[in-house]
Amino acid sequence: MASKWHPDTNPDGMVNLGTAENHLMLNDIADFINSKGLHLEGKDFDYGEGPWGSVRLRKGMAKFINRHFHPFSPVDADELTFANGCTSLFNMLRMTIADPEDGLLLSMPGYIAFPTDFSLLAKMKPVFVPFHGADQFSLDAVTHYEEAYRKAEESGTRIRALMLCNPHNPLGKCYPKETLIALMKFCQQRKVHLLADEVYAMSVYEVPEPSATPFISVLSFDYSRYINRDYLHFIYGMAKDFACGGLRMGALWTKNKELARAVATINQFRWPGQVDERVAAKILEDEEWLDSFLTKSRERLAASNKLARQLMDYAGIGYASGANAGLFFWIDLSPWLNEDDGKDDWEREERLVKRMLENKVFLTNGKGQASERPGFFRPVFSREERMLREGFRRLVNTLEEN
Amino acid sequence: MASKWHPDTNPDGMVNLGTAENHLMLNDIADFINSKGLHLEGKDFDYGEGPWGSVRLRKGMAKFINRHFHPFSPVDADELTFANGCTSLFNMLRMTIADPEDGLLLSMPGYIAFPTDFSLLAKMKPVFVPFHGADQFSLDAVTHYEEAYRKAEESGTRIRALMLCNPHNPLGKCYPKETLIALMKFCQQRKVHLLADEVYAMSVYEVPEPSATPFISVLSFDYSRYINRDYLHFIYGMAKDFACGGLRMGALWTKNKELARAVATINQFRWPGQVDERVAAKILEDEEWLDSFLTKSRERLAASNKLARQLMDYAGIGYASGANAGLFFWIDLSPWLNEDDGKDDWEREERLVKRMLENKVFLTNGKGQASERPGFFRPVFSREERMLREGFRRLVNTLEEN
Repeated sequence: MASKWHPDTNPDGMVNLGTAENHLMLNDIADFINSKGLHLEGKDFDYGEGPWGSVRLRKGMAKFINRHFHPFSPVDADELTFANGCTSLFNMLRMTIADPEDGLLLSMPGYIAFPTDFSLLAKMKPVFVPFHGADQFSLDAVTHYEEAYRKAEESGTRIRALMLCNPHNPLGKCYPKETLIALMKFCQQRKVHLLADEVYAMSVYEVPEPSATPFISVLSFDYSRYINRDYLHFIYGMAKDFACGGLRMGALWTKNKELARAVATINQFRWPGQVDERVAAKILEDEEWLDSFLTKSRERLAASNKLARQLMDYAGIGYASGANAGLFFWIDLSPWLNEDDGKDDWEREERLVKRMLENKVFLTNGKGQASERPGFFRPVFSREERMLREGFRRLVNTLEEN
Repeated sequence: MASKWHPDTNPDGMVNLGTAENHLMLNDIADFINSKGLHLEGKDFDYGEGPWGSVRLRKGMAKFINRHFHPFSPVDADELTFANGCTSLFNMLRMTIADPEDGLLLSMPGYIAFPTDFSLLAKMKPVFVPFHGADQFSLDAVTHYEEAYRKAEESGTRIRALMLCNPHNPLGKCYPKETLIALMKFCQQRKVHLLADEVYAMSVYEVPEPSATPFISVLSFDYSRYINRDYLHFIYGMAKDFACGGLRMGALWTKNKELARAVATINQFRWPGQVDERVAAKILEDEEWLDSFLTKSRERLAASNKLARQLMDYAGIGYASGANAGLFFWIDLSPWLNEDDGKDDWEREERLVKRMLENKVFLTNGKGQASERPGFFRPVFSREERMLREGFRRLVNTLEEN
């Protein structure tokens, strides 16, 4: 990719509205660590307690989950396994819960990297679930999971897992409790593992729509009434809510002891670094600071989202309503797909991406995110105001040129 | 494992002479980082430049290699790929240079984790090379590699690579140049990749034997006269020479662009952490400090090795002569294998390990390290004097009880 944009030093650089990083909170994290100091000891450079995360780190994360996810039964440090990022956990989950060519149900649209995380190396087959215009957060969604399940099994693909990304990436919405329960029941009936990725759980912000669904964790109610404990697995990491993608800290929580053991066996190739561990533990342990950090983050996300919406409204660009979570939203650029740009709308979408890059703005488009319809994009708004304005200015310029 | 021994706080804990960590230098690393300070910035918490290591880190490592390994042609930062530890690199190498069930030639004895690194997940078949009493560092060794190659190919296993660990783990010896050249020629002739792991290169210390072979890197002469550049791959990491196992910093150098590209594609699951990267870069960049660190390390290793030899001599335990590298040496406990302890000497060795653990001392035994003969062990001597003395005291007690 071209060199990064900077308002003063590199005004012609690329404005990245594609990567889901929370730029709004990066300095807060750095300042916190710098002010606290790390005070490393000799043993911090050693192999430590192994690749699954030190007791200190796992205790810190368990405490955090128990405080912020309101679990029905408290999460225990022993039930957590760390790896160098959620992406590594997904890869290991595939190797442990499924055989090559087994199917993984993924909502359309879905997080751009899920298919790679599960299929690159691990050879699990992504089975995308279309909703044909139905609301995938409503109870209606289950019919569509059923349909995709049936079709896959009929064509010889055994479905082993359902990936539930809540809050949803790229849609930025949360699932209501009744839908979570319905999906649990579906998984229970079909003996399918439910992988609950809640990596954006603390990035739920205030929006004007009163109908926006608040976040509720799968851990926060007695899920064992709907799904066998061995079939629910919870994934959380520090990349999004903590603005710490660089730390490579992903955690798996599961009650399934055999699965935990299997993951531990192959964890040595996904070993997070020790100094990063110390940093992560320091962050997780300071509750007071963390509370204020998360509050600030939600306020800044709300403000940035508000500005992004205003800019979209002003440009006449439509976006999904009710989004209140994550670092992005889902916008509809299909009216700007140019007939001269290709033989179908997917080609035209691809061409639009190229035009944006020519104008030095980068957004991820729908095709890579398994959008059902062409012309959708996922701008990331967790950027400083100047960058956000400049990015949208370039986006609008691109559309106007079209 | 039982709780760690500490002379004051936990005198009944387990003395670990098994894990190859350089305890002698841990505090020096911690002090250096604490005194320098990390001064983290917001961008240090972001995804950064991707999983293969930042330009800064790769430049630091290239400079280090060029200064200390005396390469015939300078190593370029672009030719390096980082992962979260050498163990992850080995795993990726297997996935890129071979198909499942292809064979990897490994010397007997050999580093305990190579078979796992290459065969767990990656399903490469370890093909052990016995030397039947011949000196595996001499030119004679090649005949034995040839023999193992021929047998494997005859039985249907295609040999794709030879693992060359120089300095050797667990033997603690270096290969002379003529043997390196002979092995290169063998690999060239058989179209076998040569994986040169030089992770102990800077841990070569002074010993009384004038015959001990000094270290020479595969990079330090014009290897392309003997082996195609695409078939030689160099692996180095910071776990041993830098006493930084916790940082998870392993680097692959190769001229084979296709291999580098293939490794880069699957590197996302082996992403080292960003703060660990900053620490690693800081270490690599301070040449003056690093020179004095490495000198100190070699002096302390020499002193510790001298003490360990004295303790062995005093106890009448034999050890391989000419060892001058690494953090361990190879000792012969076969005279203490007790007939009542099992139906053969391998069982008796296993029982001896258990007796040691009962006496709260942990050493790795030969079986797991593909020793040709039973009764050999690899004590790690890079420990503080009190710990080393206590560990050997327990070892000798165990032998006397037998």
